[in-house]
Amino acid sequence: MLNLYSHPSEIRQVCREGKLDIPTPGLALGFVQANLVVLPYSLAFEFLLFCQRNPKPCPLLDVTEVGDPEPKLIAPGADLRTDLPRYRIFRHGELVEEVTNIRSFWRDDLVGFLIGCSFSFEHAMLKSGLPVRHVEEAKNVPMYQTNIKCISTKIFSSPLVVSMRPLPANKVVRAVEVTSRYNRAHGSPIHIGSPQMIGIQDLNQPDYGDAVTVYDGEVPVFWTCGVTTQLAILQAKPELAITHAPGHMFISDLKDEDLTF
Amino acid sequence: MLNLYSHPSEIRQVCREGKLDIPTPGLALGFVQANLVVLPYSLAFEFLLFCQRNPKPCPLLDVTEVGDPEPKLIAPGADLRTDLPRYRIFRHGELVEEVTNIRSFWRDDLVGFLIGCSFSFEHAMLKSGLPVRHVEEAKNVPMYQTNIKCISTKIFSSPLVVSMRPLPANKVVRAVEVTSRYNRAHGSPIHIGSPQMIGIQDLNQPDYGDAVTVYDGEVPVFWTCGVTTQLAILQAKPELAITHAPGHMFISDLKDEDLTF
Repeated sequence: MLNLYSHPSEIRQVCREGKLDIPTPGLALGFVQANLVVLPYSLAFEFLLFCQRNPKPCPLLDVTEVGDPEPKLIAPGADLRTDLPRYRIFRHGELVEEVTNIRSFWRDDLVGFLIGCSFSFEHAMLKSGLPVRHVEEAKNVPMYQTNIKCISTKIFSSPLVVSMRPLPANKVVRAVEVTSRYNRAHGSPIHIGSPQMIGIQDLNQPDYGDAVTVYDGEVPVFWTCGVTTQLAILQAKPELAITHAPGHMFISDLKDEDLTF
Repeated sequence: MLNLYSHPSEIRQVCREGKLDIPTPGLALGFVQANLVVLPYSLAFEFLLFCQRNPKPCPLLDVTEVGDPEPKLIAPGADLRTDLPRYRIFRHGELVEEVTNIRSFWRDDLVGFLIGCSFSFEHAMLKSGLPVRHVEEAKNVPMYQTNIKCISTKIFSSPLVVSMRPLPANKVVRAVEVTSRYNRAHGSPIHIGSPQMIGIQDLNQPDYGDAVTVYDGEVPVFWTCGVTTQLAILQAKPELAITHAPGHMFISDLKDEDLTF
């Protein structure tokens, strides 16, 4: 029986048995959850290069050996084919299927990439008494495409996608301080204040996730977002790409504090 | 005429004209100098992966497109074939030649990797009033192989190589603080105190560089070192590898402060 104190390996085991098909926020609190991207080896150098050139939106936590589904660095013994609750299969940039394991899609030439996510710094914000509005309102974080371009490779390019958390003006600096330590989980904000300056027309119309309340006296603060990698992949239209389903992340053995400098 | 205030692009131009064949420490102070590694594309994913798994010894600042000698991120317009004062050519892990340009060795399948070095944090130490002994003694920094293993890939593995700077005991914490900000230039130390604990038998017999004086009341402090990547390459014995010659680094347009978190 899973509970608040279940270890990531227990949760992964239940996924492996096909018995867990829910979003992962709130599970294994304090452990690092990661975005999953699986690509053929023919694209692996280029994707690694894209992440290396854009480490703030794409903080790589682990890359598997070609054909090996075990993320040895962040979760020895885990199996990327089965240990997430839900996956998405893309062919030539089109979503074709959502599945609860990828055993039948796995191939000897696939490489798995695990990318840090904002849950890690959100825990730190909450512990520091900073409000996290979408948590308060039980919503998904609002995410927006910006007019900032990532550094491209020959194959991968993408506009930068950001997430937004409104903060009382007198807590903005503290939010920068607290989140900047988590430099393998997007780190410090990329922008503070005017959404227009980064090409966002209307905070109430996020491109992904849900709009949240911004109270009088609050400032919108923007962090880079791992959805950037998904856009880069969709634009490249690889013959096969597999990702986690939104909110259905890989739960690693790393602790949030492992992602600080 | 080059002087203390010459811009990196001027120094690179003089190298390109074949008129500069000296070590680079002291040139373009405040600008980032980088280690160079050039490998065939067939090894590029594996080497990028090795650097990604070992970011402290191998902080990647730029990776060129396949066949393109221009490091567009850190020095637009530069040419890795000519803009360093001196290079080393390795065939199957053996040093075969030292040259002042690599025009005749360049191929359409080569990839250049530029890796941060300790000069960046040493400038910061000096500005903070922390002694840098090998600078005081006009020597090369002492470097040692340790018993710490890097995280391997299928092709690349290496013991961690460290550099050592002795510090008065009451300045050790400040040295950690000052250098930890430079997380793209090896960052904070990897070890403080007993050399034996990391497999170093005799501080007076460095594996690379020169021994320096350690005064009474001083503590040896160890940082990861980019020579680690060179060991990894020698062990992998690629059919061709090209590096900078020791001390003859690539001078980029980045400022030291660009390497802080």
